[in-house]
Amino acid sequence: MAKIMAVNAGSSSLKFQLLEMPAEEVIAQGLVERIGMDDAIFTIKFAANAKAEANDQVEVKGQKAKFKTVTAIKDHSVAINMMLEELSNLDIISDFNEIVGVGHRVVAGGEYFDKSVLIDDDVLAKIDELADYAPLHNPANAMGIRVFQKLLPDATEVAVFDTSFHQTMPKVNYLYSLPYKYYEKYGARKYGAHGTSHRYVAGKAAELLGKPLDELKLITLHLGAGASITAVKNGKSFDTSMGFTPLAGVTMATRSGDVDASLVAFIQGKENLSNDEMLNVLNKQSGVQGISELSSDMRDLRAARKDNEKAELAINIFVDRVVSYIGQYVAKMDGADAIVFTAGIGENADWIREEVAERLGYFGIKIDAKKNEGCTDEADISAADAKIKTLVIPTDEELMIARDVQSLMK
Amino acid sequence: MAKIMAVNAGSSSLKFQLLEMPAEEVIAQGLVERIGMDDAIFTIKFAANAKAEANDQVEVKGQKAKFKTVTAIKDHSVAINMMLEELSNLDIISDFNEIVGVGHRVVAGGEYFDKSVLIDDDVLAKIDELADYAPLHNPANAMGIRVFQKLLPDATEVAVFDTSFHQTMPKVNYLYSLPYKYYEKYGARKYGAHGTSHRYVAGKAAELLGKPLDELKLITLHLGAGASITAVKNGKSFDTSMGFTPLAGVTMATRSGDVDASLVAFIQGKENLSNDEMLNVLNKQSGVQGISELSSDMRDLRAARKDNEKAELAINIFVDRVVSYIGQYVAKMDGADAIVFTAGIGENADWIREEVAERLGYFGIKIDAKKNEGCTDEADISAADAKIKTLVIPTDEELMIARDVQSLMK
Repeated sequence: MAKIMAVNAGSSSLKFQLLEMPAEEVIAQGLVERIGMDDAIFTIKFAANAKAEANDQVEVKGQKAKFKTVTAIKDHSVAINMMLEELSNLDIISDFNEIVGVGHRVVAGGEYFDKSVLIDDDVLAKIDELADYAPLHNPANAMGIRVFQKLLPDATEVAVFDTSFHQTMPKVNYLYSLPYKYYEKYGARKYGAHGTSHRYVAGKAAELLGKPLDELKLITLHLGAGASITAVKNGKSFDTSMGFTPLAGVTMATRSGDVDASLVAFIQGKENLSNDEMLNVLNKQSGVQGISELSSDMRDLRAARKDNEKAELAINIFVDRVVSYIGQYVAKMDGADAIVFTAGIGENADWIREEVAERLGYFGIKIDAKKNEGCTDEADISAADAKIKTLVIPTDEELMIARDVQSLMK
Repeated sequence: MAKIMAVNAGSSSLKFQLLEMPAEEVIAQGLVERIGMDDAIFTIKFAANAKAEANDQVEVKGQKAKFKTVTAIKDHSVAINMMLEELSNLDIISDFNEIVGVGHRVVAGGEYFDKSVLIDDDVLAKIDELADYAPLHNPANAMGIRVFQKLLPDATEVAVFDTSFHQTMPKVNYLYSLPYKYYEKYGARKYGAHGTSHRYVAGKAAELLGKPLDELKLITLHLGAGASITAVKNGKSFDTSMGFTPLAGVTMATRSGDVDASLVAFIQGKENLSNDEMLNVLNKQSGVQGISELSSDMRDLRAARKDNEKAELAINIFVDRVVSYIGQYVAKMDGADAIVFTAGIGENADWIREEVAERLGYFGIKIDAKKNEGCTDEADISAADAKIKTLVIPTDEELMIARDVQSLMK
């Protein structure tokens, strides 16, 4: 048995999950927010134990314990050190060295990485170099890696890229219709995102369908605050809705998805916005939030839709764009065996699944209302006579990261 | 019988067609290019007559006559005056006043115009106002109108908008997922283009299928140097691939079609391009020209594809994006009765039609190779067992314009 940690380091946050492998059991999960502030928030959830009962920073409810503290955390180094100390204090680990492997989520892997890799100086240099493609994320990911290398010098460090699953896309799908030199000079192409999630649910879907993954055509719908749709053909990413960056594709919580590039320039001119300001509008003020002027959360929009035209419109546009991509990918793969709902909305919003599916009757997509209702766990929710199946599969990126670490440790 | 002229005024060009209505017979068609230059080129094609034989600027081949001259043409006023004079000189008309109606193609009609209209001061003011949406086209269109108003004061002048057919799109399809205020403040939405062509071929398709247009779901593929795809549901534009401007949608001759907006900003930064320079790249240096680095013409790419990887790639990307939009619109309309090929590529490139259709077998689209081969005229080229029919219908925007003029003269 080995303890492996999956880490997602953001610019001012750190998410982690500690797993017992190969049992695939989650021992603890935690979050540090507002790193760099005097009131950073640090939480760990774990199974209640003797130490938990005795600690007044821990709230215990039955089998569940939650450690929480609000304190000044200067930087990621302090945050990670504190996290390791607390895991030890709380008897979750007895020694730092129990953590034999750490898997780091890295947002942009460019064309360098088509799978997860052991981190060495060259890998780290490439992650730095790719900051251009993910200016908010890659530098934070690299910083997280460096701190762990220092604090856990004996652990195996692995980089797991959001983009690597999509490196199998054929050129006809990943290339934009721009001057070819931009691809050569700057790697201007589609990279996609959420790769770890699409890869995970595709594998699970094959198990659920009882067929080999490499014989299946799947459309995986990762619908959360960020949303992306992938055509998975014979186990490989064939096309995906996100583009050069995670801005493109379907309507999201606050991201615009696809938009006429001329319109972006037009609005920039009218509003006198810099490129950075415009990108901020497209990433943070658009999507269902921008349309509804109410909320980026589907639950709020659903509650309001009856009396609020813009909330209704935002929901309908979201559903429409999802339906459009499904149609596109059924065409491009010349059919599909199943569509797979995952992530926040995909796993929990039975009503969104219903609205999507009922518009796809022509393709033979049809769900069983009873199976769909309230379903949040892995399930085949298709109607008996559906031609293309509809599945719900909760995603688990952390588990996928831990598995990648384990397989690289062998 | 009445002579009606269909006019398409560009910034340095003027295209026209003179029709005998309601016979719908083309009497003459002409083109003035390089207006403003010392070597402007002026041509008129018409049916050979006595005057043609006697004129040394006219080349006669059997029944066909072609007048051509290269001369200095200062502006549109001079061009149009010269055009009317020559029509008279060549005995195509006996008097200017024979031309009882003029229909002007106008690119942007915004949300003001959902159909063709008689031109008055208010209409002209709105066309001026909409120059923001089509800075290269609307001012030229308005200039053409003003010159005709002066030269043919008694003729009925009608504006026929490229966008008006698409004004029936539901909001869920025309609204982008951007902050709603941009729609309210600037009319930031999808307007589409090629409306006159999509409207014309949709009507013809219904005739060919022998069914009422308002009971059909059609996907009209206007594939020329500019290319757009429209979902025509019950005779109305339901969705279309072009967007706020004619840049969006499928890959075109030199236009990019859909592209991640973040990538545009990224390239602009790398290449240090202004917004206008970047728009020029997206409109004039992208598309199959940009990918192939060889030609914007499908015929050249086809000739080169065997030995030229980028020519092959450009063709495949073009076909792929067309297939994607068809899939999208089959999903959105919950089925389709027929797809309709039109415009330069759609009417003439049997091999492109074949490549598109053979990727859509899952939808029951299937063409008859013999019917398809060499077909350039109106035809149903579907295989006998096709579920969704495939039609070829040559477009005729000028006829549509003349019809609109005639119906408004009554």
